[in-house]
Amino acid sequence: MPNKGEEERVRALCNELVDKVESTVKRLGLKAVVSPQGSVAKGTWLRDSIEIDIFVLFPSRLSKRELGEIGLKVAKEAMAGYTQLERYAEHPYLECLVPFDGKEVVVDVVPCYRVKRGDWLSATDRTPFHTAYACNRFKRKGELVNQARLVKAFLRGVGVYGAEIRVQGFSGYACELLTISYGSFRRVVEAASGWRKGEVIDMEGYYKGREADARDLFAGSPLVLVDPVDKRRNVAAALSPNSLGVFEEAARRFVKKPSLRFFFPPKIKPLGKRELEKRIKEIGGNLLFLKFGRVDTKAPDVLWGQLYKTRDAVAKLLREFDFQVSRTWVWSDESEANVMLFKLESLELPQSKVHWGPPVHMKGDSDRFLRSNVGVPETVFGPWIWRGKWMVERKRKYTRATDLLKGELRDGGIGVGVAKIVAQSLRKGFEVLCDAEIWDLYHRNEGFAESFSRFLRGRPHWL
Amino acid sequence: MPNKGEEERVRALCNELVDKVESTVKRLGLKAVVSPQGSVAKGTWLRDSIEIDIFVLFPSRLSKRELGEIGLKVAKEAMAGYTQLERYAEHPYLECLVPFDGKEVVVDVVPCYRVKRGDWLSATDRTPFHTAYACNRFKRKGELVNQARLVKAFLRGVGVYGAEIRVQGFSGYACELLTISYGSFRRVVEAASGWRKGEVIDMEGYYKGREADARDLFAGSPLVLVDPVDKRRNVAAALSPNSLGVFEEAARRFVKKPSLRFFFPPKIKPLGKRELEKRIKEIGGNLLFLKFGRVDTKAPDVLWGQLYKTRDAVAKLLREFDFQVSRTWVWSDESEANVMLFKLESLELPQSKVHWGPPVHMKGDSDRFLRSNVGVPETVFGPWIWRGKWMVERKRKYTRATDLLKGELRDGGIGVGVAKIVAQSLRKGFEVLCDAEIWDLYHRNEGFAESFSRFLRGRPHWL
Repeated sequence: MPNKGEEERVRALCNELVDKVESTVKRLGLKAVVSPQGSVAKGTWLRDSIEIDIFVLFPSRLSKRELGEIGLKVAKEAMAGYTQLERYAEHPYLECLVPFDGKEVVVDVVPCYRVKRGDWLSATDRTPFHTAYACNRFKRKGELVNQARLVKAFLRGVGVYGAEIRVQGFSGYACELLTISYGSFRRVVEAASGWRKGEVIDMEGYYKGREADARDLFAGSPLVLVDPVDKRRNVAAALSPNSLGVFEEAARRFVKKPSLRFFFPPKIKPLGKRELEKRIKEIGGNLLFLKFGRVDTKAPDVLWGQLYKTRDAVAKLLREFDFQVSRTWVWSDESEANVMLFKLESLELPQSKVHWGPPVHMKGDSDRFLRSNVGVPETVFGPWIWRGKWMVERKRKYTRATDLLKGELRDGGIGVGVAKIVAQSLRKGFEVLCDAEIWDLYHRNEGFAESFSRFLRGRPHWL
Repeated sequence: MPNKGEEERVRALCNELVDKVESTVKRLGLKAVVSPQGSVAKGTWLRDSIEIDIFVLFPSRLSKRELGEIGLKVAKEAMAGYTQLERYAEHPYLECLVPFDGKEVVVDVVPCYRVKRGDWLSATDRTPFHTAYACNRFKRKGELVNQARLVKAFLRGVGVYGAEIRVQGFSGYACELLTISYGSFRRVVEAASGWRKGEVIDMEGYYKGREADARDLFAGSPLVLVDPVDKRRNVAAALSPNSLGVFEEAARRFVKKPSLRFFFPPKIKPLGKRELEKRIKEIGGNLLFLKFGRVDTKAPDVLWGQLYKTRDAVAKLLREFDFQVSRTWVWSDESEANVMLFKLESLELPQSKVHWGPPVHMKGDSDRFLRSNVGVPETVFGPWIWRGKWMVERKRKYTRATDLLKGELRDGGIGVGVAKIVAQSLRKGFEVLCDAEIWDLYHRNEGFAESFSRFLRGRPHWL
């Protein structure tokens, strides 16, 4: 939680930057309203993660292309002198790094349309309404602001804060709504520890008496948090069943026995080589790493979407070849290095595998089956008849998981479901490593070491 | 096929024995008819497997107990001087060994009721009607007798001749009916090579135009061969899908390329220890043997029924503990030694296994799951949340199939489905052997060696 002085300095910085953008708009003779949004505008930011959002609201007669181009032009001119990074969501926006208290603060300058509530033209048009709604509720009950900060800090601590694809957790706005809805941090975790499957939170009562309708409308979402400014939108739409589950169980544990460790994961000290080998052995080993280089995208959401899609495809590939995948894990520095980990029951399989053939009475199928299985080198045993069907034991194509990945991903693996830009990267080369062979990367890359050490612990730090 | 002289000597022996039984019946003042039955009566026996059946038909006013007791008394007195063995099917009958041509011939003396067709009181009452039906048809077309012998010899050669539980194949009567129905050996194999699923053979046309009714009535039978003397009975009721499949494919192969090897399986020369080890390696090894001693029953059908039931139960047990069973095999000398073989994909499994827990939102189930999985020595990794459910990696109870059998069958294994009298035998002790550890039995027991060598070939000798 920021102290009084800090809070004032952050607000001052925000106002200063809003002024800059406003004067640029004026200078360029544009009809646009500049407005601070997000956690700073609502006063709900966390001390160690300040992010300033400045929205520029344009008239709705602009095309989307114009909105993007003009928005970017304004932003670039206003923020001249700061490090700038063009980002892209539905339309482009500018991310800047602004010096503050000896560090750097992320400032996003985002264009949107100035519309009436409900007449949404772009995805970001709702934001000013979200800010207004939250500020209005916070005005009525001032202590809610800090309660919302506690909710965010708790979710961040257990790893499910953020609606981005990497996390698939709760957005800042979702945290604020939960706080407003239940009244305090304590009541939020109490409620979450008792949420049922497909829980519906409808604070404005849009679906009062018709919760089933809401559940149908948002089918597939593990939690429905109806947006107070748009009853057709689920604020928790990006939430995965995983992240929801983590929050629910963490909430239950916290209610039973509150502790600061939910908010602050213990610092992890990277292991030495011997210790790493020992820990890998303790957890049963059979770790299969797929390591590859740069994936050609600037947007982290695109990157993580493609990484997760690829993770699922490779896990499916392994299972199709009878490798039991117990757990997967994905790491990326979002630039040069990407690692997928598949924890298997075993890195090796028996030489041969039994196959069922057709029923013997099916003459044509039996003929074909026998032609391809009698007296061929792949057949180890049989064929024989069991319960009226043919059976045969054949050599496996791959007995080692490392060979499987090397063989089936050589061409990028598009055919087995690897995401397109990941496949491009794989075609340039990849490494397949087992167990402690990951040491090289581990001792060179602190981010990887910390993240992988957490994985090696096996269960959440708060459990 | 027997030659003229042999045929006459067999018939003479049969008549002589019938006379003996008849005079005993007379001497005891009983009202009973003595009649030769089976393959000798029909003239369809195979040269190297002569079996004489003599039926004693009693009036239907006798109780089943009386039928058994009096039948046995007559048989014992009539066959005095020969080796005798009391056997039991629905009621007791006498099996005798009678010297013939320097060997011994099996002679069964069987009591039954003398009834009108359809008024069956015991299972054997149909036999005289079967004999009469076949003889009548053979009289009209003499060459059918030798054609029936070819059918029997073919089925014996490919291993599916006999309706006993061990074989679950075609009875002699079934062979005769097929021959009568299709007209010749050649036409039988041609027909069998094109049989469809649930084929209905209804030579007397009892279900003409209503074959679907017959299929319903005999649902579960892979082949329906309607008994000409009892339309409610399927002569192929004992046939397993396995044995039918073997016949169908062998028939197809024979039609494509006729050969004597279908009738006469090649002699197998037992392997030396080195060769055995080599062959086991070639077929991928991972052979798990369960060896145990005498099972307390005199009836082979009971023994084999119990052995097969136990085989299924142990295979299920192995699968439940994740051992992939590729093929099973059962051997018994029907006296002192029994062996079950389970060919596995692997005799060993990875140390740990991944388990799914309950959905996280189910509070009570989650609590229970976490209590039994967090911080216990069995947990190797986790628990963690995946797709909204708990997962955990735990140590296996058994990683070696040998340990599994030793552990779970120590008490006989009734609880896992081992048949009762087999469980009694297991409680007295059993051995679990792997791969070439079976050498001891193999080189001591010729019957085992031959049978196991056939198994090691992997596919039928005619394929």
